Amino acid sequence: MAVYTDVSFEDLETFLHAYDLGTAHVFKGIAEGVSNSNYYLQTDRGTFILTLYESRVEAEDLPFYLGLMEHLARAGIQCPTPVHARDGKTTRKLNDRQAAILSFLDGVSLRRPLPQHCTAAGVALAEIHAAGARFSVKRDNALGLKGWRNLVRDCAPDADTIAEKMRSAIEEELAFLETSWPAPLPSGIVHADLFPDNVLFVDNKISGIIDFYFACNDSLAYDLAVTLNAWCFEPDGAFNLTKARALIGGYETKRKLEKAERAAFPVLCRGAALRFLLTRLYDLINHNPAALVRPKDPREFVRRLRFHRTVRSPEAYGL
Amino acid sequence: MAVYTDVSFEDLETFLHAYDLGTAHVFKGIAEGVSNSNYYLQTDRGTFILTLYESRVEAEDLPFYLGLMEHLARAGIQCPTPVHARDGKTTRKLNDRQAAILSFLDGVSLRRPLPQHCTAAGVALAEIHAAGARFSVKRDNALGLKGWRNLVRDCAPDADTIAEKMRSAIEEELAFLETSWPAPLPSGIVHADLFPDNVLFVDNKISGIIDFYFACNDSLAYDLAVTLNAWCFEPDGAFNLTKARALIGGYETKRKLEKAERAAFPVLCRGAALRFLLTRLYDLINHNPAALVRPKDPREFVRRLRFHRTVRSPEAYGL
Repeated sequence: MAVYTDVSFEDLETFLHAYDLGTAHVFKGIAEGVSNSNYYLQTDRGTFILTLYESRVEAEDLPFYLGLMEHLARAGIQCPTPVHARDGKTTRKLNDRQAAILSFLDGVSLRRPLPQHCTAAGVALAEIHAAGARFSVKRDNALGLKGWRNLVRDCAPDADTIAEKMRSAIEEELAFLETSWPAPLPSGIVHADLFPDNVLFVDNKISGIIDFYFACNDSLAYDLAVTLNAWCFEPDGAFNLTKARALIGGYETKRKLEKAERAAFPVLCRGAALRFLLTRLYDLINHNPAALVRPKDPREFVRRLRFHRTVRSPEAYGL
Repeated sequence: MAVYTDVSFEDLETFLHAYDLGTAHVFKGIAEGVSNSNYYLQTDRGTFILTLYESRVEAEDLPFYLGLMEHLARAGIQCPTPVHARDGKTTRKLNDRQAAILSFLDGVSLRRPLPQHCTAAGVALAEIHAAGARFSVKRDNALGLKGWRNLVRDCAPDADTIAEKMRSAIEEELAFLETSWPAPLPSGIVHADLFPDNVLFVDNKISGIIDFYFACNDSLAYDLAVTLNAWCFEPDGAFNLTKARALIGGYETKRKLEKAERAAFPVLCRGAALRFLLTRLYDLINHNPAALVRPKDPREFVRRLRFHRTVRSPEAYGL
């Protein structure tokens, strides 16, 4: 849950003067995402999310994220879109943070998705990849292969305090990935964080995709590998091949993977597992108890990584 | 903010089987109250709050609180009312907690209420007192004069770590109140926690009163003294006589204070300030950083108490 920056109703009222949204009827801090402060807002004109961007989101990246959401929505993706203020802008300062008002999407995220939901997630991911193809702004993946080296440098010294032999496991894995990472694959806009938290369902149909604050340009198959890590493992760490087939099957109804993508998939899965292992480890080591957010457990991704290291061919993922 | 107990959508779905509320479309943890876990819930049948009662609320008191809200709503008070499950019950277990679904009320709480809002709060408080008169269940005020002795015993030893000379100030104040507390005054159902957080407004009109989890039987004028402490001081600790006149004036449009209540009012105000000083002090001393809630500052009530101790007659409050 995340409400780091306090916003009073009076702060909101002043902020709303810049918008054409009428009077606020409901305004509540909500437990949504972990990086930003989010408020549920209902006015005469509809329901919205007010987001205050905390330090993790770079202000200079906001035009990319907000522009991307508008672009994807125009292309038919159900995602939040920023409300333009009367001066046309989509961001402005609120309580010393950059802030935006976005449309609110109905739907609930699932904790224990079934194969049918994995299929739907796969379809949605491919639709995002297709819709993103015509977006002209670019953003490098700061949490891609090149970024992992820095994360390892920052986290490795404390890794063994979290789990035995984690440090050597991380360092060996990074060394492997740096030598084995595939040559450039088909790339474009990727969500890069399509966990079940970020997919909303109503009556088992996707009603919205949220949280584009890790979106960037990267290889599309890597995004599928992230999504597989997020959707296809059970709470006990077991890999669920039925869910993986459902996810990839859903994806391939919209976009067939190329031969090079299939061949690289096991390595991409290892990279995706390491990426979340490292950021969770970083967040746990640097956790501020006053931040009102429970850090997620990096060991979930140690278990996923352990599975991926046993994989000898793409068939293991149902490819 | 408070979401202590995690509830997945799947947990909710199972829980909803007992109710006639249709399918859930929105389900989000919200920052509401400090004692319980609260979720915003939207289904085919409307919008609701799902509350999980944490340790601070005694399960045996739930029939009182929930019955009171139903009673007050029938008497015209805009307050949440519990939804009855198909078996007629208003509470059932969810993730090892007692839980209830209550109707959701539109409205926003004010951080800096103006005199007009204080008038409205005074009117609403008198209406609650009138509506509560016919409620047959009783509940003693566990946080009344008798309860303060235990709180002082638990907190006093650590009080000086929070503010200089707080321990002696608390002990002296309690000794004064134990000898000066008035003889029984008109009593009945009191809200006992009518802070601005618990009063919702739409377009400067009250749209709802929430959080009845401190409600009990006590003297009505004491409840007005609590409300005065909550609404009529500025952030810097200054007493705002205009707001006090507005609050009491609003109250007296519905119920005139008796002579004994006026005479006792300065002592009741001191008692009310001590009550919140003590519980905030207790919460601060016993704060668990993992609880995802920021403890409130007891020193705000040290300043209020300091003001009340300078008062020589009820006129100081505009009486």
